[in-house]
This record gives sequence, structure tokens and C-alpha cells, in this order.
Amino acid sequence: MATDINGNEIKYSFGLWTVNWEAGDPFGNQTRAFMARDLDSLRKLKDIGADAFTFHDADLFPDDATDEERNAAIDALKKVINETGIVCEMVTTNTFSGNQFKDGAFTSSNRDVRRYGLRKVLRQVDLGAELGATTFVMWGGREGVEYDNSKDLYDAHARYAEGIDTVASYIKQKGYDMRIGLEPKPNEPRGDIFLPSIGHAIALINTLDNGDIVGLNPETGHEQMACLNYTHGLALAMYCGKLAHIDLNGQHGPKYDQDMVFGHGDMLQAFFTVDLLDNGSPNGGIKPYGGDNGIKTAGYRHFDYKPSRTETEAGVWDSARANIEMYELLSKKAKEYRNDPKTQELFKRAHMAELAEPTLAPGESVLDFVKNVQVSDFDTKAMADVDFGLVELHQQALRHLIG
Amino acid sequence: MATDINGNEIKYSFGLWTVNWEAGDPFGNQTRAFMARDLDSLRKLKDIGADAFTFHDADLFPDDATDEERNAAIDALKKVINETGIVCEMVTTNTFSGNQFKDGAFTSSNRDVRRYGLRKVLRQVDLGAELGATTFVMWGGREGVEYDNSKDLYDAHARYAEGIDTVASYIKQKGYDMRIGLEPKPNEPRGDIFLPSIGHAIALINTLDNGDIVGLNPETGHEQMACLNYTHGLALAMYCGKLAHIDLNGQHGPKYDQDMVFGHGDMLQAFFTVDLLDNGSPNGGIKPYGGDNGIKTAGYRHFDYKPSRTETEAGVWDSARANIEMYELLSKKAKEYRNDPKTQELFKRAHMAELAEPTLAPGESVLDFVKNVQVSDFDTKAMADVDFGLVELHQQALRHLIG
Amino acid sequence: MATDINGNEIKYSFGLWTVNWEAGDPFGNQTRAFMARDLDSLRKLKDIGADAFTFHDADLFPDDATDEERNAAIDALKKVINETGIVCEMVTTNTFSGNQFKDGAFTSSNRDVRRYGLRKVLRQVDLGAELGATTFVMWGGREGVEYDNSKDLYDAHARYAEGIDTVASYIKQKGYDMRIGLEPKPNEPRGDIFLPSIGHAIALINTLDNGDIVGLNPETGHEQMACLNYTHGLALAMYCGKLAHIDLNGQHGPKYDQDMVFGHGDMLQAFFTVDLLDNGSPNGGIKPYGGDNGIKTAGYRHFDYKPSRTETEAGVWDSARANIEMYELLSKKAKEYRNDPKTQELFKRAHMAELAEPTLAPGESVLDFVKNVQVSDFDTKAMADVDFGLVELHQQALRHLIG
Amino acid sequence: MATDINGNEIKYSFGLWTVNWEAGDPFGNQTRAFMARDLDSLRKLKDIGADAFTFHDADLFPDDATDEERNAAIDALKKVINETGIVCEMVTTNTFSGNQFKDGAFTSSNRDVRRYGLRKVLRQVDLGAELGATTFVMWGGREGVEYDNSKDLYDAHARYAEGIDTVASYIKQKGYDMRIGLEPKPNEPRGDIFLPSIGHAIALINTLDNGDIVGLNPETGHEQMACLNYTHGLALAMYCGKLAHIDLNGQHGPKYDQDMVFGHGDMLQAFFTVDLLDNGSPNGGIKPYGGDNGIKTAGYRHFDYKPSRTETEAGVWDSARANIEMYELLSKKAKEYRNDPKTQELFKRAHMAELAEPTLAPGESVLDFVKNVQVSDFDTKAMADVDFGLVELHQQALRHLIG
Repeated sequence: MATDINGNEIKYSFGLWTVNWEAGDPFGNQTRAFMARDLDSLRKLKDIGADAFTFHDADLFPDDATDEERNAAIDALKKVINETGIVCEMVTTNTFSGNQFKDGAFTSSNRDVRRYGLRKVLRQVDLGAELGATTFVMWGGREGVEYDNSKDLYDAHARYAEGIDTVASYIKQKGYDMRIGLEPKPNEPRGDIFLPSIGHAIALINTLDNGDIVGLNPETGHEQMACLNYTHGLALAMYCGKLAHIDLNGQHGPKYDQDMVFGHGDMLQAFFTVDLLDNGSPNGGIKPYGGDNGIKTAGYRHFDYKPSRTETEAGVWDSARANIEMYELLSKKAKEYRNDPKTQELFKRAHMAELAEPTLAPGESVLDFVKNVQVSDFDTKAMADVDFGLVELHQQALRHLIG
Repeated sequence: MATDINGNEIKYSFGLWTVNWEAGDPFGNQTRAFMARDLDSLRKLKDIGADAFTFHDADLFPDDATDEERNAAIDALKKVINETGIVCEMVTTNTFSGNQFKDGAFTSSNRDVRRYGLRKVLRQVDLGAELGATTFVMWGGREGVEYDNSKDLYDAHARYAEGIDTVASYIKQKGYDMRIGLEPKPNEPRGDIFLPSIGHAIALINTLDNGDIVGLNPETGHEQMACLNYTHGLALAMYCGKLAHIDLNGQHGPKYDQDMVFGHGDMLQAFFTVDLLDNGSPNGGIKPYGGDNGIKTAGYRHFDYKPSRTETEAGVWDSARANIEMYELLSKKAKEYRNDPKTQELFKRAHMAELAEPTLAPGESVLDFVKNVQVSDFDTKAMADVDFGLVELHQQALRHLIG
Repeated sequence: MATDINGNEIKYSFGLWTVNWEAGDPFGNQTRAFMARDLDSLRKLKDIGADAFTFHDADLFPDDATDEERNAAIDALKKVINETGIVCEMVTTNTFSGNQFKDGAFTSSNRDVRRYGLRKVLRQVDLGAELGATTFVMWGGREGVEYDNSKDLYDAHARYAEGIDTVASYIKQKGYDMRIGLEPKPNEPRGDIFLPSIGHAIALINTLDNGDIVGLNPETGHEQMACLNYTHGLALAMYCGKLAHIDLNGQHGPKYDQDMVFGHGDMLQAFFTVDLLDNGSPNGGIKPYGGDNGIKTAGYRHFDYKPSRTETEAGVWDSARANIEMYELLSKKAKEYRNDPKTQELFKRAHMAELAEPTLAPGESVLDFVKNVQVSDFDTKAMADVDFGLVELHQQALRHLIG
Repeated sequence: MATDINGNEIKYSFGLWTVNWEAGDPFGNQTRAFMARDLDSLRKLKDIGADAFTFHDADLFPDDATDEERNAAIDALKKVINETGIVCEMVTTNTFSGNQFKDGAFTSSNRDVRRYGLRKVLRQVDLGAELGATTFVMWGGREGVEYDNSKDLYDAHARYAEGIDTVASYIKQKGYDMRIGLEPKPNEPRGDIFLPSIGHAIALINTLDNGDIVGLNPETGHEQMACLNYTHGLALAMYCGKLAHIDLNGQHGPKYDQDMVFGHGDMLQAFFTVDLLDNGSPNGGIKPYGGDNGIKTAGYRHFDYKPSRTETEAGVWDSARANIEMYELLSKKAKEYRNDPKTQELFKRAHMAELAEPTLAPGESVLDFVKNVQVSDFDTKAMADVDFGLVELHQQALRHLIG
């Protein structure tokens, strides 16, 4: 049982759509269609060590289900929840598969689609609240374009903001204990998706009336598809108090969305991601994920991956287990790395703690600074000669990781 | 003489470091060292059609210049300004070339470096104000790491924010008519740079006390190095009221920073960038650049490019002229595309104007909406059948561009 | 009617699967399933200006079709061919969609799959020959892995080579007037595909016994997904005498396979691609595509694109027409660019013709050269000062392209 | 002391330019100029475990050195070699830094430059032979363009081929025990470099008269800059008998050339690279590097990396040691992974050995196959149901790597 630096048990969560993925791709038929909407998967997830699960409406019932069919599916889900004790920690809405969403949901140029999408989301908010979910994720996979002149870009952002704000307002008015996590992605299935990165999403949140309950659900592979550093992105989200939830998986740089097992892509970055999530920042400014970093979060390590299409049902569970095993291995190594006195020495060599000191002195105003200190006062040669030892510090991490 | 949709003349600006680039690269010696700090370049820029220029402190005098040398260089610059009438519209500081900045400037783990960097920036703010510059650009090229454990990521963001906020506060306290433009870049010269995209930079600005005068200076190639859409990024910055300045150039996707002539990289995106800057968004929500979109901007089309290292001095001016020629060609084509009645018809087919309508009706609350409207009320088949004609609309733009 | 530099009419061809694409994607249902296997599409392709078409077996009949069903489909196809005069210039086999191919076809670790895949290919070779196709394309979309230890990499290349060689041998033994075009792709649907680029494919061809009838079918977007220059790749294939066929389309750099309209991605590169295909190399070393550049080719400009999923049936034909329109526009501009006397002057400034001269003089042996010429004999300063004017030459192309 | 699967000691080699790198970059001054051309570095390399070294002419003496200066530098080098016993295993020529090479060396449009470049290379071939080097590397860093119309692409390939062939012919005529290793790179310092990948280079080699002694020197990061799989590329080069030498280092995907410590980039791929180099392919088709895989190679694990610019002299040696330490750690883990009986079981589950079996049976002709076997004979359902367990096999590797 892995724990974070504060001794809190690390809890795992999986999307129901992950193990139930039918395993079709743009050039291939579905090899595992038999797994779609299988609720037994929840029992198996519990068996392999998952504490919680998450789902889209369409993972449970088709978009064209009747009320009876929908209710039957919800009842069946509740039964499994009650029997197994697995927690429904997050829900989300599929506003991307249906043909009606072909040009977007909250940003469709067709207002009917926007209203339909919004209503579908709000219905799922209610269901999530009923099931006790404390996070509501919004991945706007269709919110984008292939061509730069397909949409008015001002209006697209305005409508996207309206949609998110309306959902947030609804959550507040209903008094739900729930916050929103926006999930950025740069492209696929659209040529360019709006809110392509962690940064873009925070920027839009800051324009909302109800942004206080809106944070992010950053996915490892999505940032890496844009050559961006996922760990840095998480740190910015935490710094801004906006890390609501996470989607862990594996990706090999800018190509199609691979959704591999966590740690099976950029493994080195996975290690530093775990170190940040479990141990916070070295100087303590960012607390471990699930601690108080602004927006309230339950801190689940949530896996949003796809068992490779080559795999049979056996491979589905091999891969689900692999996510947890990878996290636990990396968590153990991260702790050893942090606890090694040699690491602490290398932190000193790197001036790690000095970065916590404000640049201006206590009580020093910028006007004083300009008056009292001149550019020519500094010994630039001495600065250039400082030996930070950053390669050795990195190698120290690797020694623990694979030593 | 190109004009924007409001009839305002389009004015061009160049970085002094562009035409004066010494043309060295990581694998090659400087082929044009003779052009460094040449002030005659300003006369030539004026001659080829530039209205304004910009510069780093180090473009004018070396970091280790004495006060006498520095003053002489400033006097020489003022003389050229007075003689030619060229405007100094923006200044910026070199906090990346010197060896003392090897691990960062505002985010160096060495507090002395941070103080030196801050002081150097503030000195340049004063010089910019003295010369009438209304924008102060900050590109934190060294603010980053090669290794994820090189710095405390919380502290790095905190110090970066402190540095920017201090400069903004100084500008306000001094009463300068000046705003800050942060320039994001994903990598190079560091493995990962903090504030890697337009979005990340806006996110950090929103944490500042003095963020009201802090906006962005997005560079075409920098966003494209991260597989991100530059035009979309500009639109988000404008939507957030944060477009302070622009750096136009050319890039071919994720590779080293090419800094080619504007339009010599992703030409199609250059076309839509010009259309947005000159004509605003189709429904008028975003006004042309230089109009009122939040932070105050003079609207210069500023080129931050490098004449290819293959070129002699003749090629330097060939390439400088090419930037203006490309902009004027694209501007003309964008106007023709917008004015063609067939384009307007295709906008209708694309439901372009409908995206401006709020999703909820006037006076409709979200609670009313949930009560009165159900998911099953919508005709999803009709939505799926809408014929937006987005490929034809795109082809219409291309017909004008190359027809 | 566009013509190449030799006055030969440029002829267009489309994959049947392009306009008939059902428009599903990894995150979305099929919006145009009604178009699958529609033979009327051929009539419409003829109407909009296509001279020829191409198809996979599975575009005509499902993998599990009975002989009767298959024959009926073939008869129906022949009927359309006869009625319209449209030419079947190339055929190919679907060895990627079926679940049996999940780990590869020619490189499946399951020998049964390899034999099945080979037999399926050979059946389609026979059908192609019967229909008069002169090119047989092999895209090994499933030949690859997600994990570097999934397959023995030596054996994978050996089996891939065996499969291709066997097909080539079969074509020769049957006396078909047909050559093979391998289609490289770096990734998607597999994490890494074997033969990821034009170069890798030529390298493997050179190991074959029957490589003389094996060339390439390079696709614009596939090379660009790997940040590689498509035009350069075509030139290398032509230089090696290995350009058998082409797949033209549009892509925006490394992301999922976009398959947009030709010219709707990297437009500048599309222009130089057309210039190479229509006009050959400036000094005449590479003749226009369809001329004698090694392997025999009919020179069809073949579009392998997908009408965007946003489009209805109207948009399918808008986009098909857009491919031809783009090619014709670019072809016209390329001719004007080449014919402009100013271009010829700039070619001189660029020393364009001098690159055709061998580096050693006629009759000069390398031993003579080493004996008679020393490093210190050269005037490196004079070399450094040559003014090639490459930016101006590029700008000259752009003036014609968008002027 | 690490050994390969055949018990041969693994020997390490470093470029002299690596530890002696002056640490300048496109945006920063040189922080370690004091290390340029330092021959003491060779003693230190020997001390930290290097067996051999490599160098460019310009690493030893400047391009404008007099004969006396050059001879003095060579004598000093020989002295260190004699005193330390360090082996000069490879040499190469700098045909990229000098201003005269601004538009290429073997592909310069200026014939004088081509002759100068060729003469410079041949002089270094002689020096390499004198020093006992058995590999001659050619990295054509300047052979390329920024603009697709800068050069005649046919002539560029023809001249490149002429240059390489001339050098190979010279080596043969002089009777040197030396082979050529071409080093592909996709871009930087040129916008697009000719021979951008392993595949492209092999393709060109196959057009040479003297290609029998021309192979490759693939660099980890160069392939990864093009989103290509380095391990797969090495396997193709080995399959084609063309792996002459290797350049190991670290890179994080498509961005500027990072040249980090081996294993500090894509660590997972580094592991499988080591497994291939040390242990060959699982079924034995590719023997360990240095065994007989076609072109003769001494099998040095050669590091071509740059100590990060943040580092002082201490960090230079930290990072040099880190390369060897990483290799040894990965080598040990690869051996354990291969030797674990569970791995062998998972190889069986993956049908690993079955890929070695030819697809056609012994004595089975393709005509027999077509006659006797029909597409409908195969049980595609059974094929689709095979459980290869590829994720579990991958996870097994990771268990050993970080367990």
C-alpha cells in the first residue's frame, strides 16, 4: 500500500470506459466490442486494487436510450456500487461521439446542438451528484475546427465560457458538493481543439463568474501530444489552485492519442509526476495532490488509458494491473530518492531552497531597490561560476529509479 | 499602403536584433558579425517601409559597458531616431545571453542572479520610457530547466510571478505609459521553458497584483514549435483582453526555432492570422488588432525574424522587405476574401453568425432550462444532418489567397 | 486542363475509399455510413474531373463475403467502369481493419495470419491485373508495435521483406504489367510502424530479390507526421528510381493522420511538390512525374484524403473538387514561377546550375586531387562572401503563388 | 564491467568535442570556452572509464591553422594517446561551422566549396588512418536547405552521392582498414537536412559504387527529433548490414537537438536500445552490436552528448560519468530481463519465435500457394482470438528496469 509524504493512502480510480473499450481505431474494427457497458468490470477493478471509478453517461446507456432503459442501467450500476463498495468519484458526459456533435457541443455553430449538449451535461451532473461524485469532468473533444475560418473564434470562446459557467452555476444553485475539471487536449479528433493545454484552460476559467469551482483534469498524454511538459503543467495548475483531478496514462510525444498504461510512455516524466503528486514540491510550497492546493480534490490517481487493441480480455486486466503496479513502483522509488541524504546534499548544491526566498528583501520596495542597487554592483563572474550540479542531481534520481 | 477594416494604416516594426543578427548557430560560426549593434540599420529599416523599431539593451551596448559607453550608445540611438523619425515602440531586456543567467533570471535558484536580472530589466524600463516605448516585452528564455528535478516548480512560478509583478508595479509607480508583454516559448534554449504557451502565460498573469498592465507578446513560431495554433492563441489572448503586442515570423512545426520571414513557414495560418489582425472576428466580437480588445496596444505588426545564415548583407534587406511584402499581400487577399459576397453566403451556410447567440435564451435561467427542456426533446437526427460546408468555406479562402 | 512541362495532360485519380469514407473517428460515430461501398461515387468522380480510381478489396466487398457476393460486387464495378470509361489505375488490399490483423499482417507473429494476409493480397493482385491496374500499393498499417519488445525486430523485417518479395515474384511469374508501391507511415494505427518513412522503405526494397518492380507510394501527410519534408522525400525516391505512385493530401505536422484536401495543410510545401511533379528539377535531372525516372509509372495525381467528418454528402463532393482545384491552381502558379525571367536570374544568383557539375573534374582521380590540391589552397573568405540570394528566390516563388 | 551476451567486454568511447564543448547556444554566450581543444580531457575520459575517443579536425586545430600549428596539435594528441593508451577509434570532419559551408559542403551550389569540403575530409581520412581509426563518420549538418527551391534536389543528391563515393574510393585505394558511417539528422542547423533519417541514408548508400564500406552512425536524438523510433532504426540498419557505429545520447522528442546524457531523454527506449546492442534480437537473427551484422564494426558504445550549459567543469565530468553509469545500469537490467524464465514464458505467449518461420513453407512456391490455399480457408476468428500478452511482456521489462 503506497502512501504519500503525509502518510495518506494512495487511492486508485479508473474510467469505466478504459477496461470496457471496444478497441476499434481509425483503421481497424472493434476487437473487444463484447466489453462495452460491462458492469462486471467494476467488480474486477475492485479486485485488482481500484478504490473508485468514473464514467460518461454513454458508458452506461446509449444516447438514444429510453427513460426506462436509462433507469435500469443506473439501477444496475447502483447495485454493483452497493455490493462492492467501489466509489463513484467522478462523472463526465459524452458530447463527442454522437453525429449531432460533429462541429462541437458547447461551441457548435448550431444553437440547438449547444442547448442539447448543455442539457445532456446537466442531466449527467444530476446523476453524478446522486452517486456521490465530487468531480465533474468536461473534455470538449469536439470543441474545435479543422480550418481556421470554420468558426468565429471570439464567439467560440464566448460560448465555451457560457457553457462551463452555466454548469458551474447549476452545481452551486443545486448545492452539490462537486467541482468541475476541464480536460485540455491540443487535437484529435479535431484538427485544433479549443483549450489545447493546461494554460489555455486556466486562462478561460479566469473569465468565468463561477470559476471558483472550476479547475482542471489534465491528462498526461494530452500535454505531451503538444510537446509540453506534463509535470510542469501540473505544477502550474497547482500553483494557480486549479488542479481538480488527474488523468494518468502513457504517450510517446506528438502523434495520435496513444492512451497507454501510465509509465509506458515517457517513463522519466512519469517518475517526476509521481514525485510531485506524492511528495509535493521539494521546498513544500506545493503540497501533495489531495492536500490543500486551492480547489478541493479527493486526490484519486485516476487512470484514463486504453488496453492496446492487440490484447484479449486477459490483456485488458494485465494492463489495468500494470497501471497500479507502475504507480506503486514509481511511488516507492520517489520516496527513496527524496529520503536519500545524498539527494538532500545535491539539493543544497543546486540552491534548491534559495528559490523560495523572495527576490526583493522583506520591506524593500522596488523604488528603494532601483535607487540603492545598480546593475554594475553585481559580480556577474561569480554568478556564472556557481556549480549547481543539475546533471548529477538528475542522475541521482535515475540511480534510485533504475538502480 | 495596407489598412485594416477600420481604415487605419497598418504600421510595421522590426527588432533591431533581427537585421543585425550575427548569424551564428549551434553548429556554425557567425557569418555576419559585422552587423552587430549597427545603428545604420534603423535608417535602412525606415527606407524599406518600417515605421518603428524595438531593441534589447544588449542590442545597443554590451552587458559590461561602462556608463560612458552606455550613454554614448543611447545618444547615438537618439540621434538616429531624431533624424529619421522612426519610432521606438517597444523595448526588452536580454536576460538570457550572459553566463550569469545560465540557470534562469527571474527564476534562477541563485538570488543574486534574480536581483541582477530584475535590476537590469528595470534599467531598461527606464530607458524604454525615456524613448517613448509603450510596450515592454519580457521573454524569459532562460526561465526553465533541462531536468524536471532541477528546480522547485512552485518556487519557480512564485519567483517568476514576483519578478513580473515587481516590474509592473514599478511601471505604475513611475507613471509610465507602458504595458508589459510576456512572450511564451515552449523550449530552446532550455529543455522546457516556464510559461511555454499563450495559455500558460495568461494563467500566471491572473495571479498577479498588477496584472492589469500585463499582457502577451505571442510569437508565431513559438506556438507552432508546440504544435499549437497561433491564430487560435491570438484569439484567446484577445478574448481575455491580453494581447499587448505581437511577434510575427515563420516556422515549420516542432523543430528548432527557425525565425523565418513571416509567411515563409505555415503560410495558410499566416493568412488567417492577418485576417484576424486586420479584420477582427467575422461577427465583430474581436476588433482588429490595435482596436480596443482589453489591454492597450499600438497595434504594430512587429517582425521578430532572423535573416537566414546563408544570406549576405543583401539578403538581410531582401528578407526584411519580404516580411512587409508578405504581410501586404496577405492583407490584400484577406480583404478580398472577406468582401466577396460568396464568402458571406458561405458564412451563412456555416451558421457563422449563430455562434454569437447565447445558448440560454434571454432571461432563461439554468434551473428553468433544466425544468422545461429534456434531453429527449431534441431532434438529434436533424442536427447531424446540418450542412455547414466548412471545406467549401476553406476552399473559398484559398481561392482568394492563390487564385 | 493542366499540363506538365512536357505538355502531357495531368490526370487525376481518387481512392474509392476517400469519397466513400463513413466518417467515423476514434471518438466519434460514423456520420456518413450510407456512402460505404457506393459505386455511384465513381460516376460522380468522373463528373468532377477524375480520370481514374483506385480501391482496396474491402472497399468493394466485405472480408467475409461469399464468392457469389464478391463476384457480384466485381461485376457491378466492371459495369460502372465500362459505362463511364473511368480507369482502374491502382489497387490495394486491406490488411489492417480485420481483427485477425491486430498484431500485423506480413509481420504478424502468428504465421497463420501472415499466410492469410499474403493470400488476401495475392487475390487482390489478380483482381487488379484483371481490371488493368498497373500499380499495386501495399500500406502495412498494422506492421508495427506499440512496445519495443513486442516483436523480434530482425524477424519482423525479414518477414516483411519475404512478403513483399513473394508478391513481386508472383506478379512477375504471372506476367502482369504491374509494379508495387510501398506506402510508408511512421505511426497510427500502431505506436511505431515498420518502414516509417520513404527512406526506410527504399532501404528494405534494396534487400529484395525482386526489388526491380518494387517502388514507393509516398503520402504527403505520412512524411509530414514525422516532421519530414515530403518534397525532399519525393526527390530522393525519384533519384533512386523508386517513385511508383503518389498519395496527395493535407496535414498539419505531427499529430493524428488528418488526410485533408491536398494543399489544405502545408500549402507552401504543396506548391513545391506540384512544381517538382509537373516541372521536374530545375536543371532537368529529375524529369516530371510520369516521365522516365526509373520504375515505370503512369503519373496519376492520386488523392488519398478524407472529406472532413463535419461534412454531409454535399461536402464530400465540395472536398473532392477542392483537391483538383488546388492542384490546378498550384500547377498554374508553378508554371508562371518557372517561366518568369526574374526567376531564371535568381536561379543564376543561387548558382542553381553549378550544382549539376561534378565536384571532381572530368578525368580527375581522387588520388590526383589529393596530390595536386591542398586545403590551404582555397580562398574560404571568398566562399563565405558568395551572395546566393536564397530568401529572395523563395520570396519570388511566393510572389507568384499569392501575388 | 559490463559484457554483452557473448561475454565480450563493453567498451566506451566519447567524442572529444563532448566534454570540451564550449557551451554556447543560439541565445547564450559560451560558458565553458576554456575547455575548447583541451587534450587533458582525454586523460580524464580514460580515468572515468572510457576506452576510446573520437574527434573532428576542428576539435584539434582551427580551420585556419598553419601546417606547423596543425602538426604541433597532432603531435600533442599522439603524445596523450601514447601515454594513456586511449584508442582513437573514429574520426570525422567539421564541414559545418565555417562560414564557407553556409549553403552546404558536398552539396554546396558553389563547386569551390564542394572541392574544399572534399579535400578537408580526405585530409582527415589520412589523419584518422594514421591514428588507427577504423571508422570515418560523415555528418552532413549543412547539407540541406531552409527553402524547398534553394537547390536542385536531384543534383543535391547526386553531388552528395559523388562526395561520399569519392571518399569511399579513396579509402579503398589507400588500403585503409576503415569504413564510413553516415550520420542522418532531420534538421538543425538547416531547415531540412538531406538524408534526414536512417532509412534515407541507407537508400542513398545503395546508389554508390563503393557502398560496401559505407554504413551508418545513427544518433539517438536525431531519429527522435523526427518522432522516429531509434531502436527500430538500429534494427533496420543491422538488418541491412549497415550499422557501422553509433552515437548514443538523450532527447525529448521533436525540438532542438538536446544532446543530453544517454538515458536522460526517452529512458524506456534507451533500455531497449541497450538490450538490442548487448543481446541482439531475441531469436538471434541480429547478433549483438560488434558481432557480425554486415559492415565491420568495433562495437564501441560511443557517446555524442553535450554537458548541459548550466554545468561548470565539475558538471562536465559528472555528466560524462553519467553516460557510462546509465549504460551499465541499463545493461545489467537488460540481462536480468532476458534471463528471467518468466520473460521466456511471455516470449512464448507472444509467439516471439514463430516470427522467425518463413511464411511460405519450405519448398512451397507462390504459385502452389495460390493454387492450393484460398482466402476462405482461414479461420479469421481464431486468429483474432490469439492472446499475445504484449502489455504484460512490456510490463515484465519495466519490472526489471525499475523493480
